[in-house]
Amino acid sequence: MKAYQQMTKDELLTLKEELEKSYKEAKEKGLKLDMSRGKPETAQLELGMELLDAVNSKSDLKTEGGVDCRNYGVLDGIPEAKQLMADMMGTTPEHVIIYGNASLTIMYDTISRSYTHGVMGSTPWCKLDKVKFLCPVPGYDRHFAITERFGIEMINIPMTEAGPDMDMVEKLVSEDEAVKGIWCVPMYSNPQGICYSDETVKRMAALKPAAKDFRIFWDNAYVIHHLYDEHTELLDIISECEKAGNPDMVYEFASTSKVSFAGAGIAALAASRANLEDIKKQMTIQTIGYDKINQLRHVRYYKNIDGLKAHMKKHAAIMRPKFEAVLAVLEKELGGLGIGSWIAPKGGYFISFDAMEGCAKVIVDKCKEAGVILTKAGATFPYGKDPKDSNIRIAPSFPTPEEMAQAANLFVLCVKLVSVEKLLETK
Amino acid sequence: MKAYQQMTKDELLTLKEELEKSYKEAKEKGLKLDMSRGKPETAQLELGMELLDAVNSKSDLKTEGGVDCRNYGVLDGIPEAKQLMADMMGTTPEHVIIYGNASLTIMYDTISRSYTHGVMGSTPWCKLDKVKFLCPVPGYDRHFAITERFGIEMINIPMTEAGPDMDMVEKLVSEDEAVKGIWCVPMYSNPQGICYSDETVKRMAALKPAAKDFRIFWDNAYVIHHLYDEHTELLDIISECEKAGNPDMVYEFASTSKVSFAGAGIAALAASRANLEDIKKQMTIQTIGYDKINQLRHVRYYKNIDGLKAHMKKHAAIMRPKFEAVLAVLEKELGGLGIGSWIAPKGGYFISFDAMEGCAKVIVDKCKEAGVILTKAGATFPYGKDPKDSNIRIAPSFPTPEEMAQAANLFVLCVKLVSVEKLLETK
Repeated sequence: MKAYQQMTKDELLTLKEELEKSYKEAKEKGLKLDMSRGKPETAQLELGMELLDAVNSKSDLKTEGGVDCRNYGVLDGIPEAKQLMADMMGTTPEHVIIYGNASLTIMYDTISRSYTHGVMGSTPWCKLDKVKFLCPVPGYDRHFAITERFGIEMINIPMTEAGPDMDMVEKLVSEDEAVKGIWCVPMYSNPQGICYSDETVKRMAALKPAAKDFRIFWDNAYVIHHLYDEHTELLDIISECEKAGNPDMVYEFASTSKVSFAGAGIAALAASRANLEDIKKQMTIQTIGYDKINQLRHVRYYKNIDGLKAHMKKHAAIMRPKFEAVLAVLEKELGGLGIGSWIAPKGGYFISFDAMEGCAKVIVDKCKEAGVILTKAGATFPYGKDPKDSNIRIAPSFPTPEEMAQAANLFVLCVKLVSVEKLLETK
Repeated sequence: MKAYQQMTKDELLTLKEELEKSYKEAKEKGLKLDMSRGKPETAQLELGMELLDAVNSKSDLKTEGGVDCRNYGVLDGIPEAKQLMADMMGTTPEHVIIYGNASLTIMYDTISRSYTHGVMGSTPWCKLDKVKFLCPVPGYDRHFAITERFGIEMINIPMTEAGPDMDMVEKLVSEDEAVKGIWCVPMYSNPQGICYSDETVKRMAALKPAAKDFRIFWDNAYVIHHLYDEHTELLDIISECEKAGNPDMVYEFASTSKVSFAGAGIAALAASRANLEDIKKQMTIQTIGYDKINQLRHVRYYKNIDGLKAHMKKHAAIMRPKFEAVLAVLEKELGGLGIGSWIAPKGGYFISFDAMEGCAKVIVDKCKEAGVILTKAGATFPYGKDPKDSNIRIAPSFPTPEEMAQAANLFVLCVKLVSVEKLLETK
């Protein structure tokens, strides 16, 4: 197929007419599909049902160390759960605190604590004139929403195929004391599915921040969420930071929300001993302890990291066909047209699509009009503002593969139509 | 028995010698009992084991409205859980948000949010020179720890048998704009077990605060934790505030920590619609939702308020003998001696004891020396400072009734010994 840019005005007008006809037909199908959020589908939820039997009324609810999980006590998580989550993150249990059901809440809490009480003795951020965060883009809207809520100025950092643009990160972090953090999803980044290269992780760990309370917010949400048996390995940021002489520079987050149940899993933070001590000064005021029965339930069911990995292969078997369905449609329908680009992710929950500049919002609106809900255009950028109005996040997990193919076909149709309209504007 | 104050020096010296001998013997018994925290005992935890079977791998995990509790969604709790917790608190579901496993965390979060973002549009407390809280004393140490952490100045308010001294509360709240809140445990107050009278609740609801962001922090921790079938009823603070024209003036907190499992229950906040809207602006950034499976588990197991109440009778049957054992020892051993006073509570988790001035710390230390751990003296006051060094909190729930009687006997022995020593100082 001819690239759209090379078409004459007449060719484009003819094409537009055809596409409008197809769009009209598509609308009449009355689709009703939601690809807006990284939400597991029912079959994935069915995979973990036996988790609910892992502790029952006949169970001994004591930990190996003899703690009764039904009672108060154990501020930072039962040892077995620390081991499980440490293995998942690729760190060791002494770096881990187990929280409640969501890593998002830990991240909010971490920013909120820094704002109210500072970081390991630093000035609370609420007392500073200006606090800035680096935001690799496209990125995760809920990260940006947290920093926005606390009035933190967000600076866009372009993503490369190896992770954030580290030249820019190094420069900003070392020169500006107001830069207090960077949001990272290092494995299968949200939404592009990019895995940070070893060099990126090492450069991240070796940052020389102007602010001593600068922290890397390492959201390892998809650390074991591979689509294929063969996959890249992410370096352990905590030991890399240690090696680089920056042991306290990172907070790592993870959860089982997309392993067991979305919202009924367990979540963890990993960091240096000094950070954990600082955090526990807050925790001990904030809670007597999180839900240890749910921690035990997870440990009894998955047993260990091998159990987690085996379970994730079942998820992959459900997810893979959906990703492949979308990618096949994108390749078949848009390949060579020069009106969009994408990366084929090897894990995670999203496919990121870059449309021609100025087209994302209209494409998302057109999809919606025909019954397919995508994440709001702009959502993958701080303040919801994509400067190029180009990036669209596709979340293929929730619909079935068949629905996914339908939705993808509508999507590419909208991309084509909007692109033609855009190109005609300048003819 | 003769009141100690009326004894001569010689009588006191003789008594002291006897008491010292008994104390020495008691120490040799090598007791090891913990009465420091309101911790359920194992038999209480056994009561609720079938909660763990209420949802299992064969269950339909959908709410009545069709929401799949295994997936993301429902920010503020499933409707069935709202109904259950509303009925528990004596309010209606539209006032309720369901959170995670602990009301303490909700309280911390509430103070933290007020500090960072203010209350329904008011100036964030971190931007104010001074924020004050009223603290009825003796009270709950974990409340005071939260306000202390945020640098909030705490003002002691004496408790009466009907609740806090309302003359003082009314005066301070109406005159001082820096007073932003009051900590209340209105039903079976911690530690005295006092129930706020109707008049107290009505006066509380009718406060005319100088600060428009003043809130009553109504920690209804023991709302259904009666020891006896016959019990007083607490007025619903939310409707009383509405009637008094102060609908937004109260946050109410409750949980099932001492109903189902300590740490693995569900917790709730109740407030006016305007407050809930303000709070949800934060929640939507902070979480996608709390653990709905645990909410469903509770609803399926307890079914409704009658189920909760029936369950609490089983708790009462276990707790009552312990309370009665302590009270019997106190009455028998200390009645008429004039060296201590206490209130016989009809519910809750504590017995509060007032020793002679300047004796509490030494009594607690002496008990510890002989193997009985009590809550740290002073803990029931802001900053851990009991101005009279008089109040001691006894938590009878964890030991068995027999252990409890042993511990109580040691306790009264220590009270006698320390009181005699105190009286001898001035002879």
